[in-house]
Amino acid sequence: MNSKEIKDIEAIFARLPGLGPRSARRVILHLLKKKETLMRPLSNAIKDTLDLVKNCDYCGNFDTLNPCNICSNPDRDKSVICVVENVADLWALERTGTFLGTYHVLGGLLDALDGIGPEELYINRLITRANSENVNEIILATSTTVPGQTTAHYIAECLKDSKVIVTGLAHGMPMGGELDYMDEGTIGHAIRARKSIF
Amino acid sequence: MNSKEIKDIEAIFARLPGLGPRSARRVILHLLKKKETLMRPLSNAIKDTLDLVKNCDYCGNFDTLNPCNICSNPDRDKSVICVVENVADLWALERTGTFLGTYHVLGGLLDALDGIGPEELYINRLITRANSENVNEIILATSTTVPGQTTAHYIAECLKDSKVIVTGLAHGMPMGGELDYMDEGTIGHAIRARKSIF
Repeated sequence: MNSKEIKDIEAIFARLPGLGPRSARRVILHLLKKKETLMRPLSNAIKDTLDLVKNCDYCGNFDTLNPCNICSNPDRDKSVICVVENVADLWALERTGTFLGTYHVLGGLLDALDGIGPEELYINRLITRANSENVNEIILATSTTVPGQTTAHYIAECLKDSKVIVTGLAHGMPMGGELDYMDEGTIGHAIRARKSIF
Repeated sequence: MNSKEIKDIEAIFARLPGLGPRSARRVILHLLKKKETLMRPLSNAIKDTLDLVKNCDYCGNFDTLNPCNICSNPDRDKSVICVVENVADLWALERTGTFLGTYHVLGGLLDALDGIGPEELYINRLITRANSENVNEIILATSTTVPGQTTAHYIAECLKDSKVIVTGLAHGMPMGGELDYMDEGTIGHAIRARKSIF
């Protein structure tokens, strides 16, 4: 009953993460109601992003610059590379404003079940970076899941013979986390890794 | 830390219904990962929709045609007009496939608190349609909320002196609804409006 154009845009919106056919229709009707104030800016923003945003050749971050604004920033410490699974994790770390080194995006995690081996990820590129540049430290910041830890372990093994220090994120209770709601693994780790306050 | 283009698109996506800053970022990263298979089709679909989809001058539906595919369809019964709050409601009725008349989109509901009076809605245009065309019946299909029923009542009053029959949707138990979970108003109405089965 709807025109081809509306059906097309509905089908594409329904493929976005977190949206289904119902919310896709809601978004489209909202856009059609606000054509000039929302739909045209969105159309232009998508066009610009599509044309200008690319992966950084060094770290894999998305940016309009290549090397990206982090790799090309003279204030960032190039001797420390933080290894993350994807760009979302890189952005999450950047939002904290606490890390002033550079990044390396793997583009995924090792997963034997899904057939993702080291050659599917940017691991070789990381090893090359670790050995060729003036790198002192590699921080493995993959998730604390089985694939995340497997990947971290694999990378650590690859870097065993290089001169770099390999570190990992601290584990323990999240800030604001309540003991009662936390899993046993986290609490167990937090008590074993307890730190003296005085 | 991100480029202006990424910040812009993030801010616009975060303004869409059902999305916030976090889900906007998730959508953008997903789009950037699937540039050719998802982002370019989305960009083209939004561009097409922006250029081609307009409100129908008769009923207010969104379509590439004007009059829309419903108003211009010779198989649709032009003597019956179903009055709905917005295009989402029109599409919801169309998906049932049970209504073969035409529609009239009000573009909102009367709401004294929000300062929405009859002149803010397409009520005058509806009265003109009801009186000028060969219309026999006006179905008031606004929501069963206070503004919805106020609007329906106002329109019914406006049409009192015209020759058209004014009807409303049936109320009662929704299909698959469980008594235990239904509100008292619905159950009360359903028992008062009970129908003989044999």
